[in-house]
Amino acid sequence: MKNVNNPTIKKLLEKYKEISLLGKVNALLGWDLNVNLPRQASAFRSEQSAYIAEVITDKWLDSKFRSLLEKANSEKDLTLEEKAIVRNLNFTAKIYYKVPKELIIENEKVTSGAFIDWRTAKEENNFKKFQPHLTKIVEIDKQIAEHLGYKSNPYDALLDLYEPELTAAECTRLFNGIKKELVPFIKKITKSKDYTDQIKFINGLTHYPKADQEKILNYTVEKMGFDFSRGRVDISAHPFTTTLGPHDIRTTTFYSETDFRESFTSSVHETGHALYELGINSDFASTPLEGGVSLGVHEGMSRFWENMVGKNPNFLRFVTPIFKSFYDKQLAGVDEAELIKAFDLVKPSLIRIHADEVTYSLHIVLRFEMENEIINGKIAVKDAPEAWREKSKKLLGVEPKTDSEGVLQDVHWAYGNLGYFPAYAMGNLYGAQVLSVMQKKVNVDKELLRGNLLPVKNWLDENLHQYGSLYFPSELIKKVTGKPLDYTYFTEYIIKKYSEIYGIATK
Amino acid sequence: MKNVNNPTIKKLLEKYKEISLLGKVNALLGWDLNVNLPRQASAFRSEQSAYIAEVITDKWLDSKFRSLLEKANSEKDLTLEEKAIVRNLNFTAKIYYKVPKELIIENEKVTSGAFIDWRTAKEENNFKKFQPHLTKIVEIDKQIAEHLGYKSNPYDALLDLYEPELTAAECTRLFNGIKKELVPFIKKITKSKDYTDQIKFINGLTHYPKADQEKILNYTVEKMGFDFSRGRVDISAHPFTTTLGPHDIRTTTFYSETDFRESFTSSVHETGHALYELGINSDFASTPLEGGVSLGVHEGMSRFWENMVGKNPNFLRFVTPIFKSFYDKQLAGVDEAELIKAFDLVKPSLIRIHADEVTYSLHIVLRFEMENEIINGKIAVKDAPEAWREKSKKLLGVEPKTDSEGVLQDVHWAYGNLGYFPAYAMGNLYGAQVLSVMQKKVNVDKELLRGNLLPVKNWLDENLHQYGSLYFPSELIKKVTGKPLDYTYFTEYIIKKYSEIYGIATK
Repeated sequence: MKNVNNPTIKKLLEKYKEISLLGKVNALLGWDLNVNLPRQASAFRSEQSAYIAEVITDKWLDSKFRSLLEKANSEKDLTLEEKAIVRNLNFTAKIYYKVPKELIIENEKVTSGAFIDWRTAKEENNFKKFQPHLTKIVEIDKQIAEHLGYKSNPYDALLDLYEPELTAAECTRLFNGIKKELVPFIKKITKSKDYTDQIKFINGLTHYPKADQEKILNYTVEKMGFDFSRGRVDISAHPFTTTLGPHDIRTTTFYSETDFRESFTSSVHETGHALYELGINSDFASTPLEGGVSLGVHEGMSRFWENMVGKNPNFLRFVTPIFKSFYDKQLAGVDEAELIKAFDLVKPSLIRIHADEVTYSLHIVLRFEMENEIINGKIAVKDAPEAWREKSKKLLGVEPKTDSEGVLQDVHWAYGNLGYFPAYAMGNLYGAQVLSVMQKKVNVDKELLRGNLLPVKNWLDENLHQYGSLYFPSELIKKVTGKPLDYTYFTEYIIKKYSEIYGIATK
Repeated sequence: MKNVNNPTIKKLLEKYKEISLLGKVNALLGWDLNVNLPRQASAFRSEQSAYIAEVITDKWLDSKFRSLLEKANSEKDLTLEEKAIVRNLNFTAKIYYKVPKELIIENEKVTSGAFIDWRTAKEENNFKKFQPHLTKIVEIDKQIAEHLGYKSNPYDALLDLYEPELTAAECTRLFNGIKKELVPFIKKITKSKDYTDQIKFINGLTHYPKADQEKILNYTVEKMGFDFSRGRVDISAHPFTTTLGPHDIRTTTFYSETDFRESFTSSVHETGHALYELGINSDFASTPLEGGVSLGVHEGMSRFWENMVGKNPNFLRFVTPIFKSFYDKQLAGVDEAELIKAFDLVKPSLIRIHADEVTYSLHIVLRFEMENEIINGKIAVKDAPEAWREKSKKLLGVEPKTDSEGVLQDVHWAYGNLGYFPAYAMGNLYGAQVLSVMQKKVNVDKELLRGNLLPVKNWLDENLHQYGSLYFPSELIKKVTGKPLDYTYFTEYIIKKYSEIYGIATK
């Protein structure tokens, strides 16, 4: 690898390569599980994946690897790349080195039991069934936080597991900005003159054949610059993207034959993830600099493509005739404006995964506040349903009638993943700030109106994708945009875009 | 596992399980390579597979594993299963324990160079280019044989690598029988009154759409009893079958739109392999008793289904109306007899992989004789092309005009696999001997005429498949048929079947 000369780091890279190869093996086991696996093969596949995960853990715990990393931490005069390698190794290693193995095993035991009861609790709208599990999970997560260490807020240690260096204080600053701007703006939208949440051509009865959706999707994905000699698009129940090698990035999609928007937007979203991975400097392959730097930045790229490109009104103007050429009968009489409203419909609702671009971040803010207060003992687990309802009303203006639609809706807590959610909202902020500087070089709206997506992809390759995990998110965003992260780019983008769509006068 | 109580064997099973899990990981890497891999991903995939293979080698070489196996070898009063476990571990371990690692590495180096020059040599019809490689390969194989050990013929050590306990003397006995019976019989066929090698409806111009072939194939594969909840059928350039887990057996096929016979016969062949694997006692999963016992027995099952079922004239009578329902125009006026002759065409030719059921074994006899004489210094490598031509004329009645169609046609020698070929012919003998006893319980011809394939599959499950690798081939065949292996079942089967098809009077 270029700019790596330090002999300790070189040895670390050799050892890390095995971890990387095995990680990609597990990625293939997972991809195949979701795309191909015969029904009766799942138990064996779980066993196989767990075994490979164990082998990977053993590599991290290997005493030679560990002492090399210790040595690397005291090396002087490292290059940018070398420093990043050590930093990333420390970042991943901390869960292995700082948290006792027994706690990790207990966590696995608790969460696998929790998952089963969470599912039933959600089905039966019975929080009581999940409550003891959540209590244990919170307890274990607090212990994990203690082992990992933090300055003032234990929740910071959990946030950092998913989004390096993110703190609750930073989330609070950014999310308060989002709340301040968007909570009143959403009310303006729903009270605007022509507001409606009905779309006449998406009604559960109109049929959009899968084969046509597939053609539109392949066309779009190719226009985005996805290289089929370095990846694939397949079908799975829940769309996802996975990296099986430096030249093997695979996305999946899912076709609903009553709503052609789903495969289109999810495909553009997943391709956004894939383009990030495909654009990374190939010199980083099989090193700790491989792959996108964080969940948040990854979600930044995917949501950028999904919302700021795929659901950009100008791009929707470009694709309207394409949709209409396939669905001439189904979309008879439908014009650009209606199609734009269908894709950019704003509708405050209870369920995060169905949320639109404007309300989505508020769903995350809700979860951030819940988690931060639960971890810090300001909300007791038993009071979580009530707290959820209150926050939902305040943030979204809607109140869940059942806990299934409220505190029980997401699987993340059952998995023990407290600290995960904020990365989703960070993605929106990263994307908008990146867009604001991209627009200085690329006339995004004009290009999208013509269906030119490559200038966008090329700009991202050059200015962001290539860096892989060389910079941590906060450094990366400064490097790309020249400024530290702020919420204003996002809220201004949202207010401008949706004011136009909904005909809302701005000052 | 049932009937395993010995503590040393139990420990061995624990350790072997890791080897087995990793082996199945490599099987998935290989399956995905052939079925899905994006073009630019192949270099990384090779690296990944090589790495997993290395991890597996390390497990075999692990000193604890080795001393456990040594200890197991001196244990007394073992059960049938325990003995088989130790025997199978010794069988696989010998290449790791007896052959020096440097020789294995040299072999890999030589064969990877040989493959590239073999390809060019074959393209350019230039044996001289391949000759030095083959000389080295023979030299290395002789050294490997010395390390492995043998009684009187070094070639035995190589045969045993692919078909446990097979010897050159046994091959000679069996293959001489095949020669004696089939060489004159083939002449009778080609001189029979109505003999022709022209098939009017397979002419390179008539089109048989892939989608129809796929329907026929899925129908047939399901009739054979292939369980799609425990396996898949996909597409690859060269059809193959692979075991990714005890409940995950995958076959592939390839569609030629000018010849519908190819996907049909190759699919029935591969499904034969799959049914064997699917039928194995699930208690053997992830132990050294998993999987079919040998290449020869596996080929026995696949060729049984391909030739003795798929190309059985009665089964072809059953499927004729099905083919005609899809290809009503293409097969207009074609009757059962013509379809049978198309599938059971006997035509002495130069290329093994296109050979029919009758001449196929003679292609193998040729290769066996060549290898046995080369290893024993009776044919010099430089004289191999001439020896091949002579044997081809004697055995098949046809003489290659070029070495590309002769001694250079197969890749196996370039891979260093001397000793591999005889297993193919052994498969024919196993299959025919099994059929002879099956027919005492199952009226095969009558069932096939009605399209009933399950009685055949069920008989094989009960009498052969279930045993996996519990018995070595010679024991297995005695267990299943009550008698040691002989060639007469095969030659009698061939002579009866083809005398009827070609209207040849038998004494």
